[in-house]
Amino acid sequence: MKSNLKKSILVCIAGSVLATTAQANNFKEADDAIHYRQSAFSLLAYNFGDMGAMLKGKKPFDAQAFNLRAENVAALSKLPLEGFISGSDKGETGALAKIWAEKSDFDAKMKQLQQDSAALAIAAKSDDKKALKQAFMKTAKNCKGCHDVYKKD
Amino acid sequence: MKSNLKKSILVCIAGSVLATTAQANNFKEADDAIHYRQSAFSLLAYNFGDMGAMLKGKKPFDAQAFNLRAENVAALSKLPLEGFISGSDKGETGALAKIWAEKSDFDAKMKQLQQDSAALAIAAKSDDKKALKQAFMKTAKNCKGCHDVYKKD
Repeated sequence: MKSNLKKSILVCIAGSVLATTAQANNFKEADDAIHYRQSAFSLLAYNFGDMGAMLKGKKPFDAQAFNLRAENVAALSKLPLEGFISGSDKGETGALAKIWAEKSDFDAKMKQLQQDSAALAIAAKSDDKKALKQAFMKTAKNCKGCHDVYKKD
Repeated sequence: MKSNLKKSILVCIAGSVLATTAQANNFKEADDAIHYRQSAFSLLAYNFGDMGAMLKGKKPFDAQAFNLRAENVAALSKLPLEGFISGSDKGETGALAKIWAEKSDFDAKMKQLQQDSAALAIAAKSDDKKALKQAFMKTAKNCKGCHDVYKKD
């Protein structure tokens, strides 16, 4: 059983960047943390963009699909912050060093994104299209608000 | 307002691979779909691996952290399937062409992972450590079970 557990876990974490030290996060190197947050942002952008396409009429609005996208965005919004570890301003990243100089403000902005995404996921379950658009806009503003300050052009 | 909406969405989907056609998925190219599913698997592996480290005693067990990881895994398990679009067996991928030859079996396996991950997220909220370990093992088996058949060594 113990050997099976080990084998199954090894397959599940194949390709992951897990270390086995008792740190708050488990990144071995800054590049792993950068990859983690970029993966999360990429998935977030894809799911959010699909919602935007529906709201802008670039594809048919599908309430069920919109709801799933909103749930994905709410879940994904929780992930990137863990990847902004100390020292990960160096490497293949658009993140400005300013993030770490103003970490508490950056963290607050990321948490605002999480809150607004959670509210959007709730709004997506209602039939109130106006409220849904407002919740979408509120979430979208987080991206620009944060990128303007903390991301390279 | 319309211009603001456009600007905010554009920032939110910066770097995404969104097309604006009315397809079921929004990938412009097979490589975008490959990148999408690999990003999801990578985040999944990281979060799942951390749970494994806690269960194996490689780091202290933290019920709250374990619960968050389980929620992440449950959410992330829903994402990769969308990236297995037709033609995306070609490229930088470990996915075998067999996936598309036996797509309904592959889809069923991915949905089993989603179900087991959802059950794990529920188990993670209880104090029953034995049930939690069993739910973890059940989820872990999906990785090996699917990789053995559908992934290059």
